[in-house]
Amino acid sequence: MFKLFTSDAFQMKHRYRYARPASGVTVLAHLFGIIAIILLLVWLLHYREGIDLDSDNAYRVFNVHPFLMFFGFIFMAGQAMMAYKTVGAERQVKKLVHMFFHLVAMVLGIVGLHAAFKFHDQAGVTNLYSLHSWIGIGTFSLFCLQWLFGLVVFLFPGAPSETKARVHPWHISAGRALLFMAICAALTGLMEKVTYLRLQHHHEARVINFLGLAILLFGIFVDLSISLARYV
Amino acid sequence: MFKLFTSDAFQMKHRYRYARPASGVTVLAHLFGIIAIILLLVWLLHYREGIDLDSDNAYRVFNVHPFLMFFGFIFMAGQAMMAYKTVGAERQVKKLVHMFFHLVAMVLGIVGLHAAFKFHDQAGVTNLYSLHSWIGIGTFSLFCLQWLFGLVVFLFPGAPSETKARVHPWHISAGRALLFMAICAALTGLMEKVTYLRLQHHHEARVINFLGLAILLFGIFVDLSISLARYV
Repeated sequence: MFKLFTSDAFQMKHRYRYARPASGVTVLAHLFGIIAIILLLVWLLHYREGIDLDSDNAYRVFNVHPFLMFFGFIFMAGQAMMAYKTVGAERQVKKLVHMFFHLVAMVLGIVGLHAAFKFHDQAGVTNLYSLHSWIGIGTFSLFCLQWLFGLVVFLFPGAPSETKARVHPWHISAGRALLFMAICAALTGLMEKVTYLRLQHHHEARVINFLGLAILLFGIFVDLSISLARYV
Repeated sequence: MFKLFTSDAFQMKHRYRYARPASGVTVLAHLFGIIAIILLLVWLLHYREGIDLDSDNAYRVFNVHPFLMFFGFIFMAGQAMMAYKTVGAERQVKKLVHMFFHLVAMVLGIVGLHAAFKFHDQAGVTNLYSLHSWIGIGTFSLFCLQWLFGLVVFLFPGAPSETKARVHPWHISAGRALLFMAICAALTGLMEKVTYLRLQHHHEARVINFLGLAILLFGIFVDLSISLARYV
């Protein structure tokens, strides 16, 4: 719509300063993200025991983990990554939104990780033996480093312009690699759960499979919204 | 070394035509790829039954699947993706190498998929119920379409230059998304195997975890060699 009612010159001038209309790719990312949240809730509330961090039922505690690791961590980090396309404001505002959504992702991610460790304690399960946990802990640790590094270089106190320009492509590529790793952590987690519980041939496994596909497609479209940012 | 012994002017002239020295990122990609192949062989030959597509032992038939899906499909596709950096030749030669390695990946991938179906037949297991299989089949099908599309647009017969230029960023982004999906398929496959066989607390599971990390890092460094191609 923005495109239809404004002149080319106006668009050129404002393109990089103000509103840049969200592309079809970010719309698809949101679509798959929301489908994933719905499927996640269907799974945890209908097929599983519900979500409650303070419960005596260890399984209700565990369920906080997949919910917050996707909705709290991956979905919010995806929003942060897409902020430069979806937020119609000055560059500095976009930057703050980008930082803030990543902060939210980090805080909710910490609660989500806490839920997994609390469940292990309650249920007497060993910590950090699986490929899922290795990828997950590795991703989360590097994510926190990347956030801190980004804050210091780009926002507060902020590095000289030439340093920023040199670091910028590495910041973007590292962020995309981290999104990729987070999706791998999520999918290996789902795969572990289905196989461990021997759910393979139950309806529940179909729901989890579609959840996994939705998470994967969310990751792909967030990534495309960045790699194709100049074209879409 | 190339950089040390040639003048800047020579480099500028030849940079985009001939040899472009492989960057540290492609070296790391090769390192993790080779570590993954070694760990894969240790796993399948030492901890498992060995690799043999014609065996009466269904497990030896199965083992062809992980071996060819990584070494045959993902590793070869990664080589194809890095060819523009690693092959010191004219652009047209790089393009042919890129196409040819992808063709090899496709052929070996088909044999690898066949091994999984053959194992299922021999062992009386249902096909295509798991998240791993859904991601895997989806990835492979889209990979074949992308190959065909790339062949027609970029090589034979080849589209007009402006079409090529328009399609180029989409071709690259789609290829990167497919690599990402293939790595997800591999990691969910490993996770499924470890959990299904209840290997979690055996040494074998540690080998498989490190194999998974090596595969993930291979994917990340192949991806970085493309996203940072202009900087490294």
